[in-house]
Amino acid sequence: LEQQDYDQLRLLLDQTHPGQLADLLEAMPPKKRRQLWDLISESQEAETLAFLHDEVRNSLIEEMQPEEVVAAAEQMDVNDLAYMIEELPEHIRQSIEEKLSDEIREHLETNLSFEEGTAGRLMSQDVITVRNDVTLEVVLRYLKLHEDLPEYTDGLMVIDREGFYQGKLLLNTVLTRNKNLLVKEVMNSQHQAILATTDEHDVTLFFEQFHFISAAVVDENNLLLGRIKLDDVIQILRAEADHALMGREGLDEEEDLFAPVINSTKRRTVWLGINLITAFLAAWVIGMYTDTLDKIVALAVLMPIVASMGGIAGSQTLTLTIRGLALDQITSGNRFWLARKEVMIGILNGMLWAVVIAFLSWVWFQDAGISLVIAAAITINLIAAAASGIAIPLILERMRIDPALSGAVILTTVTDVVGFMSFLGLATYFLL
Amino acid sequence: LEQQDYDQLRLLLDQTHPGQLADLLEAMPPKKRRQLWDLISESQEAETLAFLHDEVRNSLIEEMQPEEVVAAAEQMDVNDLAYMIEELPEHIRQSIEEKLSDEIREHLETNLSFEEGTAGRLMSQDVITVRNDVTLEVVLRYLKLHEDLPEYTDGLMVIDREGFYQGKLLLNTVLTRNKNLLVKEVMNSQHQAILATTDEHDVTLFFEQFHFISAAVVDENNLLLGRIKLDDVIQILRAEADHALMGREGLDEEEDLFAPVINSTKRRTVWLGINLITAFLAAWVIGMYTDTLDKIVALAVLMPIVASMGGIAGSQTLTLTIRGLALDQITSGNRFWLARKEVMIGILNGMLWAVVIAFLSWVWFQDAGISLVIAAAITINLIAAAASGIAIPLILERMRIDPALSGAVILTTVTDVVGFMSFLGLATYFLL
Repeated sequence: LEQQDYDQLRLLLDQTHPGQLADLLEAMPPKKRRQLWDLISESQEAETLAFLHDEVRNSLIEEMQPEEVVAAAEQMDVNDLAYMIEELPEHIRQSIEEKLSDEIREHLETNLSFEEGTAGRLMSQDVITVRNDVTLEVVLRYLKLHEDLPEYTDGLMVIDREGFYQGKLLLNTVLTRNKNLLVKEVMNSQHQAILATTDEHDVTLFFEQFHFISAAVVDENNLLLGRIKLDDVIQILRAEADHALMGREGLDEEEDLFAPVINSTKRRTVWLGINLITAFLAAWVIGMYTDTLDKIVALAVLMPIVASMGGIAGSQTLTLTIRGLALDQITSGNRFWLARKEVMIGILNGMLWAVVIAFLSWVWFQDAGISLVIAAAITINLIAAAASGIAIPLILERMRIDPALSGAVILTTVTDVVGFMSFLGLATYFLL
Repeated sequence: LEQQDYDQLRLLLDQTHPGQLADLLEAMPPKKRRQLWDLISESQEAETLAFLHDEVRNSLIEEMQPEEVVAAAEQMDVNDLAYMIEELPEHIRQSIEEKLSDEIREHLETNLSFEEGTAGRLMSQDVITVRNDVTLEVVLRYLKLHEDLPEYTDGLMVIDREGFYQGKLLLNTVLTRNKNLLVKEVMNSQHQAILATTDEHDVTLFFEQFHFISAAVVDENNLLLGRIKLDDVIQILRAEADHALMGREGLDEEEDLFAPVINSTKRRTVWLGINLITAFLAAWVIGMYTDTLDKIVALAVLMPIVASMGGIAGSQTLTLTIRGLALDQITSGNRFWLARKEVMIGILNGMLWAVVIAFLSWVWFQDAGISLVIAAAITINLIAAAASGIAIPLILERMRIDPALSGAVILTTVTDVVGFMSFLGLATYFLL
């Protein structure tokens, strides 16, 4: 592929789907990425940009001429454009906005008037509308005027004379029903529209529950503003999944695997700094018991076991709770039930592993006192871990802090502190 | 809702979408769940079952009469049915299979003849096919014979006389083009079919790259076997995301938040056991240095810091690598580039935090020797963490072991062992 045979490569790239091009670009180190980008034809650039992750896209746009960016922008869906333009530096953004056609700029402003993360931001303007008082025959003739319908058009949005949303006329219906029927007789009025201020997470649940391919977006008066397509919903699902996975490591879900070393180092170093505070807190707890450790060195050997078992058990509960919250499975009605269940699991697992660890410690150090103390500490820490695993995300959620981001750090702090304190504290009390 | 007003509730449930019913059921403790299930009408049961997670579904099916299950099974998509039936105990499965109609049983057997996790298993049989040598007018007349088209029908599958797949005729095209044209003139022949033996992960990438709503499934001779719908692809995406998130905690992605305590305890206890081995390994490393710890108790206080910083840095690299592998972004061509980048980040972050931690340790213990030793140990451990974070998933992947499941445990073992060994080892060598 890299044999300098540019002409042939260009031809090959032209036949490649923009989604594939984006994947290809993302899997390349920066230098090769730029080479490949230059070979992609302008007609493909717009769609490929829409498929790319933030960080990769921004790095490519910075290298492009403003005219090129504008040309690409005019071909994009307005929601992709709004998303892209918000991420750009102010001066590039202005020079692009000025050059856009009036119609597109107007659409863009409508989108940007809604808060980030709402349905209003997700909507595009490629909607085909029909009036509710015409016949299917008229609809068919109207459709024939189009050369092609926009992607993800599973139906037409039905509006009344004033532009208020009435329901969706599925293409299925147009094709299968008698053409003398009126739109209002055959449209699907249960196809609810989404209010533009709806949170994007609720939009995904809505699409999943109703198996939508596209849905109308309306304002509070039920006026049709645009539509949301399933591909944008899938993108949010991906982003949410990445966020749940990567947020707990302090990573950004848009992180470019091939970003420059300096950028990546900066981001990760912040997270290491936050965790260092946790680690020093744990060290400080241990520091309170240096006299005990001085006398019984076996405690220093065993203490990481207590902390680590608590951390693992707590993470399990935490992960389940965060996921339950994201899927709206945890309600005020079942919180208590769940908390009781998790603590029960903590008690059972705590007692089970307390016995195992006490036995292994006895084999190792032949000291019944140490075995009893570690058994008690393990049980205490696993119960504390279960309780925090459910309490921390619920409290963070109520404080409007994202549990996927900070939940794990706080949990580890709790299990480390409780683990070291219960083990070394009990040892100080009973064994000295 | 729970005021015993069953008749009204029944009425309400009948108007509820099966997707919503499934969500509702999953957010309920077992007892209430069964009560609600009994109130759901038979016509809704099939679809609701298809929306449910494994564990919840199985628990409900076990309570149902075989006849009820069969009635529901006959209304399901064959891929959902295949999935459900595989999870059932052998005797229930047989009694259901016997009672199915011949046609459905045949479809079911075709699906089950493909390996789990392949396109053949995902396909349903609700395909509308048209021959390539008829006109659009014939197609239109043929469609009128249907009362409604199946969900996610964005096009009809075009076959030749022998049933070999030729391409897809989009509904868009049927609606917008002249009806005297032949199907073969206007069909989209670039709409590639998916080979039945394709891995389901590749199916999701395929759908995402090409923005498909449905795709044909063919055998190696290009004979049309069925089709895959976008909702099944979204389900796989969800399952993959849940697996990436929950696998690292040893949790099953199908885990029911409201499963009985005993079931949940069993599953989690296995994971705690695996981690206990890691913890004891770390303890064993510490145990080799009890003499040193006996003499300098400050080492016991500081040693968890070294291990924990390594664990955090390693997890970051590990998470990025596992995700990169899942998205096919990591190839044999860029492995080396990435490994070098991660190690560079490890060196930079290692040196930075070594200085900070050395300083803080000096403030605490006023011992230059300890500060130097901890600085060296932190640097070593962060470099080892970066290298393992990229090497472990690559090696596991080559050994065909799922890195999402065991990657984190192995990584923590490495960072614990390297952390404790470098810190206590260097201290023994230089400070005693």
